[in-house]
Amino acid sequence: MTTAQLTVTIIIASWKNTLGRADKLFSTLTEEQFLREVAPGKNRILYLLGHLTAVHDGLHTILGLGERMHPEFEAIFVSKPDRAIEPLPSISELKKYWTEVNSSLLEKFARLLPEEWLQRHMAMSNADYAKDPTRNRLSVLLSRTNHLSYHLGQIILAPK
Amino acid sequence: MTTAQLTVTIIIASWKNTLGRADKLFSTLTEEQFLREVAPGKNRILYLLGHLTAVHDGLHTILGLGERMHPEFEAIFVSKPDRAIEPLPSISELKKYWTEVNSSLLEKFARLLPEEWLQRHMAMSNADYAKDPTRNRLSVLLSRTNHLSYHLGQIILAPK
Repeated sequence: MTTAQLTVTIIIASWKNTLGRADKLFSTLTEEQFLREVAPGKNRILYLLGHLTAVHDGLHTILGLGERMHPEFEAIFVSKPDRAIEPLPSISELKKYWTEVNSSLLEKFARLLPEEWLQRHMAMSNADYAKDPTRNRLSVLLSRTNHLSYHLGQIILAPK
Repeated sequence: MTTAQLTVTIIIASWKNTLGRADKLFSTLTEEQFLREVAPGKNRILYLLGHLTAVHDGLHTILGLGERMHPEFEAIFVSKPDRAIEPLPSISELKKYWTEVNSSLLEKFARLLPEEWLQRHMAMSNADYAKDPTRNRLSVLLSRTNHLSYHLGQIILAPK
């Protein structure tokens, strides 16, 4: 295994592992639990499921892997806080979209070569990338893995 | 920059960036806020500060960088839940230990060569590492970065 293969494998494994924890958590929650706030006055789990789906969907464009599957989620789950837009899509719809978005990404990740992971991401110009080659696809994926962990830590706090 | 240098740089940058967010958050909290629970009946922020310090301190041994600075924290902040052991060290002591542990690690990280980051971690035998070379120092650091993000997401929820 080359160094590039090894490090790409590690970073994708960390993403998959964190996603696996999220999937497991979401699969145990009842409909009623999805409507609970993670702490008094904070986001409901349902909103966070949509928020994570929207942010992951955005990886399609920022990593140059294709179009977003649900561009309309940006306005509902990223630009606006929970309860600004009602009603939200149903729990079963959101769970379906979550699975579809993550499956699409994993399929596309598998087709990228290690050296392509080290290329600049799409929110960055060639000139900026030349100045800072650490702003590549891998650093974006690391950042989104941490974002997922951040919200997982919150979802686990919601009352059972 | 070689591929190994580049990926090590990215992973350490993600660690530093997440630590920076934690430092900023801890620096804004009053003594009273450190005693608040992140959600009703859950860990107090003070306990999480000790927990994160203990887990980061453990990186010294698992990464083969030296002895733990506060081995006694394992029993207080890892093996036992919040409120099992009272009193906890004071907030000012814990903040000092937090800073000392993270500074010590960053100093030691800076002395590791990129290829040393790709070597097995110390909780793993040579035989197991030969079977799975992704179980290296970098994967441990990724895992601890996600652990920090997970608890940061919780700390931010505590009532202001």
